[in-house]
Amino acid sequence: MNSQDKSKSEILRQKIYIFIYGTNTPSGKLFDIILLGLIVCSLITIMLETIPEVNMAFHNELLVAEWIFTILFTMEYILRIYCIDKPFKYIFSFYGIIDLLAILPMYLSFFLPGSKVLSNIRTLRLFRLFRVLKLFHFVEESTKLKIALLSSRPKIIVFLYTVIVISFTVGTLMYFIEGPAHGFTNIPKSIYWTIITLTTVGYGDIVPQTGMGQFLASILVIVGYGIIAVPTGIVSLELSKQKHSRYTPKKNTATCPSCQATGHPDNSIFCYKCGSKML
Amino acid sequence: MNSQDKSKSEILRQKIYIFIYGTNTPSGKLFDIILLGLIVCSLITIMLETIPEVNMAFHNELLVAEWIFTILFTMEYILRIYCIDKPFKYIFSFYGIIDLLAILPMYLSFFLPGSKVLSNIRTLRLFRLFRVLKLFHFVEESTKLKIALLSSRPKIIVFLYTVIVISFTVGTLMYFIEGPAHGFTNIPKSIYWTIITLTTVGYGDIVPQTGMGQFLASILVIVGYGIIAVPTGIVSLELSKQKHSRYTPKKNTATCPSCQATGHPDNSIFCYKCGSKML
Amino acid sequence: MNSQDKSKSEILRQKIYIFIYGTNTPSGKLFDIILLGLIVCSLITIMLETIPEVNMAFHNELLVAEWIFTILFTMEYILRIYCIDKPFKYIFSFYGIIDLLAILPMYLSFFLPGSKVLSNIRTLRLFRLFRVLKLFHFVEESTKLKIALLSSRPKIIVFLYTVIVISFTVGTLMYFIEGPAHGFTNIPKSIYWTIITLTTVGYGDIVPQTGMGQFLASILVIVGYGIIAVPTGIVSLELSKQKHSRYTPKKNTATCPSCQATGHPDNSIFCYKCGSKML
Amino acid sequence: MNSQDKSKSEILRQKIYIFIYGTNTPSGKLFDIILLGLIVCSLITIMLETIPEVNMAFHNELLVAEWIFTILFTMEYILRIYCIDKPFKYIFSFYGIIDLLAILPMYLSFFLPGSKVLSNIRTLRLFRLFRVLKLFHFVEESTKLKIALLSSRPKIIVFLYTVIVISFTVGTLMYFIEGPAHGFTNIPKSIYWTIITLTTVGYGDIVPQTGMGQFLASILVIVGYGIIAVPTGIVSLELSKQKHSRYTPKKNTATCPSCQATGHPDNSIFCYKCGSKML
Repeated sequence: MNSQDKSKSEILRQKIYIFIYGTNTPSGKLFDIILLGLIVCSLITIMLETIPEVNMAFHNELLVAEWIFTILFTMEYILRIYCIDKPFKYIFSFYGIIDLLAILPMYLSFFLPGSKVLSNIRTLRLFRLFRVLKLFHFVEESTKLKIALLSSRPKIIVFLYTVIVISFTVGTLMYFIEGPAHGFTNIPKSIYWTIITLTTVGYGDIVPQTGMGQFLASILVIVGYGIIAVPTGIVSLELSKQKHSRYTPKKNTATCPSCQATGHPDNSIFCYKCGSKML
Repeated sequence: MNSQDKSKSEILRQKIYIFIYGTNTPSGKLFDIILLGLIVCSLITIMLETIPEVNMAFHNELLVAEWIFTILFTMEYILRIYCIDKPFKYIFSFYGIIDLLAILPMYLSFFLPGSKVLSNIRTLRLFRLFRVLKLFHFVEESTKLKIALLSSRPKIIVFLYTVIVISFTVGTLMYFIEGPAHGFTNIPKSIYWTIITLTTVGYGDIVPQTGMGQFLASILVIVGYGIIAVPTGIVSLELSKQKHSRYTPKKNTATCPSCQATGHPDNSIFCYKCGSKML
Repeated sequence: MNSQDKSKSEILRQKIYIFIYGTNTPSGKLFDIILLGLIVCSLITIMLETIPEVNMAFHNELLVAEWIFTILFTMEYILRIYCIDKPFKYIFSFYGIIDLLAILPMYLSFFLPGSKVLSNIRTLRLFRLFRVLKLFHFVEESTKLKIALLSSRPKIIVFLYTVIVISFTVGTLMYFIEGPAHGFTNIPKSIYWTIITLTTVGYGDIVPQTGMGQFLASILVIVGYGIIAVPTGIVSLELSKQKHSRYTPKKNTATCPSCQATGHPDNSIFCYKCGSKML
Repeated sequence: MNSQDKSKSEILRQKIYIFIYGTNTPSGKLFDIILLGLIVCSLITIMLETIPEVNMAFHNELLVAEWIFTILFTMEYILRIYCIDKPFKYIFSFYGIIDLLAILPMYLSFFLPGSKVLSNIRTLRLFRLFRVLKLFHFVEESTKLKIALLSSRPKIIVFLYTVIVISFTVGTLMYFIEGPAHGFTNIPKSIYWTIITLTTVGYGDIVPQTGMGQFLASILVIVGYGIIAVPTGIVSLELSKQKHSRYTPKKNTATCPSCQATGHPDNSIFCYKCGSKML
């Protein structure tokens, strides 16, 4: 292979790189939309397979579809490694591992028939869907919400802590009041009931049947009704703080091809986090 | 027909026009209230027909009532077309199509007996009820709420997106933890369960029965309990922003007879949107 | 009866008046607390009577207790009429009618045995309990909440209106999707299900069983999840407005003996509303 | 025992004191973390014992574990008394009584076999877990939330009061509408149903079955849906007030060994509350 060939291959590699990683370029946006469409379609295929009637009727079609998706994702995976400068950084990154786990089970199913079931790990590829938000200028809003949640984290931890202590205390109490005969078969189950009740879900699979238990449950739900006000107040507060602070979000939506870091300054040549070459 | 006749008919047409479309005139207000009364009564008729005991006892009375409403709505529809300058704009507008669909099924039931059931499309006429708010000066408040919801749209989309990704991921997980034996018969149903749980509805038709599933459900509801704080915070923020901005709502409640656009300046002669003659 | 006797009786009447209506005096406060204690005790008696086991064991004791409460309330009613200047204003006021209805059924039960059941109307006397809040300086907070709710009334009406229109539309739709076979026996019941679902109560007595119905329910609950943010945002806003406005609540807690109006200026001699003599 | 021995023992006592009560010292922090780990482990042991399958298989192991925890907690209790200056203040303090009640039942089980069940009182030791928050600088956030809740207390009392009056009134009404045949067997149970419904928990163990009852339930849940906005608005308001007030939290996390009071100024030698010697 002479230098001209090498250069040609280098140009091709560069083009593929722009196509796959270039979130800011038209071709990169196109790739992202196609990829997300494929992920959603492959998830629908997996879902349909779990419905016995559908699987019975279209077993072969679904199997073929799944193989097509697996092969496409495999090609994507190989191209991602091929066109990048530091392939190992991608391979061992969060998305790199998910991308591999999403295709591996299908190939394993040749040797281990049961392993096909693991291809549901593909669901985790849904997180890639968060990137589609970047395409539609939602990145700023998304960042605002993230900041609000992060800055209210200490308050939320204290809140969750209180919820857990209440759940344990009331759960134990209910176990002794109602007992196994009324569905509170053990303390962990009793705590599960308390959480389901306190959060106002209320399945009704376990319900207090003694007067005492119903009285305690009534108090618990009124307390829970008041408690829900706390996280709401916290998040409202943090969001309203942002209104006042002049927050200038980074509109650059490029993602580092190696470490998937975002928030690069405009015209970045190297990733600020791992030093890989950026687009 | 000489010009005097034509003029007379033109005056009548003008009067009908004012009566039907003139939301700001006393006769127009009267028409709106009568119409809304008729819509509500016709809906009650349809509802009562679905209760077997009532339908058995008053079958003929209900049928007569339904025909009376259909004939009145037909007359309204014909008059709406007759008195307007550009009838096709009304016919193909959102409300025009609904108005037609609301009366058509009853006539079709002569030829196709089963089609009467479609007259339930009449429910959509309920949206006309939003116009009654205009009569009671709620238009300003309604606009404020609409603005708050619209301006918090990007945040709400990000929020809904997160809810959907959580639902898919947890739904798939629960399918494998609980399995078809415990009611999680397939992944779409498992996702349905996740949404019903995350939103704290909790029907209890499908409930986790393994310890692992109950543990995951507990975490899910506590997360859901926290997540509900986000849209609340968002709407609170947007509403409080309005307080500071000097919002001067357009109090003119006239609706364009052709395109149903609202928000016309006072004394408008032509619609600002479609150019039709206004009242 | 000479004038001295009359004067003596007048002084007694005045004393009783102060005792019963004088919310601001020590003896008046004592009376209110005793009365509220009696109301709560009489309600507990009525409640216990509805529990068959308790009623069986303590039938006579409960009956005696109920008669004691009825006689005490009758005495209170007579004294209220006796010591007031314009007794008819009290008799035909809201509380006057409730006070009469609370004692009448017990006397009627001599002639009509079944009418005793009506003595549950006594529950409405619970509203008198709101007066006890005055005794503990909660009147200001209570007024603030009332103002916040009143000033957000137009927004809340628009909100409720939207909830009702959604309930009717989705309720009708679900009736056709699920049908009587799955518990959606008629449209009113289907609307009931929609309201129970939209408000995230979710009893589970009626649940969608078709895939289409479950899909629609999922969308409905996510919408409902978002909708709950609206009233919260509204009330938050109104409460925070109060913070800025220098609200000076009327601390005078006297109630007009005739029309039960509150909010009188200090040292009022006549009720600002009905002109009756105040304490 | 000569004075040198006494001094030695005094130094040891001082060291133990620092270890147990010195929340601010490294050794004190270590002790707190170890203690909390032990409490959590002992709770898990008690929980596992209530699951019949686990108890069957590991009965002896669990019994041994429970005895180990009891002995460790006993040692902790003795050391706490030993190293403190005013032991009776600790013994009769809130935590002192809980600490004793947590170990007593196991010893009693020698004489009274059934009393072992009472060792679940150990759950209350979970409240000690709130101290772990101090270790991770959450004390400030925790204080902010506590202040917000305390200052919104009058509003919350008015709110709870309204919820209770609604529950009693609607509960009594529903008892007469639905009656014992539909699960509303008595008024207290009917009130329990009202609370479960109003707070949007909705177990579904008791549901209205008449049209009238379902109509009332629909109104109740829509009201409840609106009511939940009130505590949320209150807490939001109080939290946002804190934002403006320059709140300077006391970062000193030392706890008085006698009365468990917190919030001491830095370098405190004596407790500001009970005057005991501080670390």
